[in-house]
Amino acid sequence: MRSVCVIGLGLIGGSVLRAAAAAGRVTWGATASRADADAARQDGHDVVDLPEALDRARVRDALVVVAVPLPAVEEVLRALPEGVRLTDVVSVKGPVVDLVRRVAPHARYVGGHPMAGSSSSGWAAGRADLFEDAAWVVTAEDDADPDVLVDVIKLALAAKAHVVPTAAPEHDAAVARISHLPHLMAAVLASVGADGGPLALSLAAGSFGDGTRVAGSRPELVRAMCEGNRGALLEAVDDALGRLGAARGSLASTGGLAKTIDAGHAARVALDNRSARTDLTMDLTAPDALRALRDLGARGGRIVALDGSTALARTP
Amino acid sequence: MRSVCVIGLGLIGGSVLRAAAAAGRVTWGATASRADADAARQDGHDVVDLPEALDRARVRDALVVVAVPLPAVEEVLRALPEGVRLTDVVSVKGPVVDLVRRVAPHARYVGGHPMAGSSSSGWAAGRADLFEDAAWVVTAEDDADPDVLVDVIKLALAAKAHVVPTAAPEHDAAVARISHLPHLMAAVLASVGADGGPLALSLAAGSFGDGTRVAGSRPELVRAMCEGNRGALLEAVDDALGRLGAARGSLASTGGLAKTIDAGHAARVALDNRSARTDLTMDLTAPDALRALRDLGARGGRIVALDGSTALARTP
Repeated sequence: MRSVCVIGLGLIGGSVLRAAAAAGRVTWGATASRADADAARQDGHDVVDLPEALDRARVRDALVVVAVPLPAVEEVLRALPEGVRLTDVVSVKGPVVDLVRRVAPHARYVGGHPMAGSSSSGWAAGRADLFEDAAWVVTAEDDADPDVLVDVIKLALAAKAHVVPTAAPEHDAAVARISHLPHLMAAVLASVGADGGPLALSLAAGSFGDGTRVAGSRPELVRAMCEGNRGALLEAVDDALGRLGAARGSLASTGGLAKTIDAGHAARVALDNRSARTDLTMDLTAPDALRALRDLGARGGRIVALDGSTALARTP
Repeated sequence: MRSVCVIGLGLIGGSVLRAAAAAGRVTWGATASRADADAARQDGHDVVDLPEALDRARVRDALVVVAVPLPAVEEVLRALPEGVRLTDVVSVKGPVVDLVRRVAPHARYVGGHPMAGSSSSGWAAGRADLFEDAAWVVTAEDDADPDVLVDVIKLALAAKAHVVPTAAPEHDAAVARISHLPHLMAAVLASVGADGGPLALSLAAGSFGDGTRVAGSRPELVRAMCEGNRGALLEAVDDALGRLGAARGSLASTGGLAKTIDAGHAARVALDNRSARTDLTMDLTAPDALRALRDLGARGGRIVALDGSTALARTP
């Protein structure tokens, strides 16, 4: 079982370290946060400084997991040993791919993004079971190192997540729509409600509470996440502006909202009725394995287990 | 204790009938739905046809509660006995006020809107405790009949709701922002997510699930609610379009979203931290009582009890 070195021990990095340790891996970590380092040590984890963590990764041929915020990624990449096995858990993939190409082209990099979290942050908010049944995106680009791809898939499965293989641009476009835009629209809705004054807030119930919930997340984290995915988020915002504008026009002219409301209802029902129906196996050593993996992700499929080089996948 | 006659025995009307009966009132109802009538009778309630229900209301000087969808209100109003005590539970107030003025100007009308519900509908979905701790809007216009105003306040309190006094236009503007716009934005968000295809839906988690939840509500009910509040909803949509457009511009030009995200966060935190802090009493027979009531609602206050003609209110 491959050793795991986690750089950054906040909510996600701290949970990866705990999950890997719970799965029986040899683990250690490093963090720039004294508070997170102390708390992780208190919980019995091995926390060292960055150079030592990365040197151990070289000696043990470990998988290095970069779990720092996007603005801090470059500094970690510059310190990497030659040819290291590398993944990350940053919520946007294109900018990380670009950074790796520019700063650490020697690294054997396969990107990752576990789709789990909470509005809390720091080591104390982490849990070994944070990723249970969650989607863990793995970028299966054509230039991906097959060994490291398997390392990352195994780590995600060890954390009890399901692996969603895709490419970086597809990932960024998808999360713009289902994570970054929802945060932006929650912020807009919260402000429009507040513009209604105390009467409006005093009448706010289910729909407003649900629609604004994530506006309560730490604004600096939401900003970093959304701003880091600028191009894809702009496309999603334009789609939303177009649809909301069309609804506005229809309400103003004919008074009707059927098209908007019916389309939204159909989309939500489709989301609720999604279920993994078909099991299939995939040989990860097949010549077209990377393309087949990306196709699986594009169809909404997930890898749920790995037996040697044979992946068990489920598609809707 | 004033008798209560409920016309329309769906989710809300059925819950009003149950809550009034549970509070010891003499109650009866009527409904155009054979299924709801049968189900209500099976549960031991007194269901008669519309003419008989309204004639009993005349004989007993009961409070008539109109709990039919907006398009069916006019027909009920046309059948009302002269000078009847009248309220309603329709989710928009301006159009009902207009209808009463036009069709039943003789009625002693005070509008109402209990802010409770679920995505289910019909008698079977109702509950005696549906309104517990919910806001029950009561329109305290200058021409409101003081006796009927007290009747409606007492009914709301008997159902364990809190009374939020306001005027019809203020109510409609507030619910456009905190109920109708959230439904519209949930529909837009659900469609934008679905546009991302199976990969996007397979990655959808907390923020998308929360932000699209009410898009699962019955589309014909959502349409009726939103389309019935056209003017106020257009203003709220324009506010949302303006804010989302500004965010788009800022993201495209400077790459920053601080203004949008920070404002949304502050609004959501204000919502979470709202708490009823100050208790005060109000004399409902005072000469300026109606204005004082509307001021209370505008400040986010609620009436939580009534002792004779003295209301106990709480403000944030």
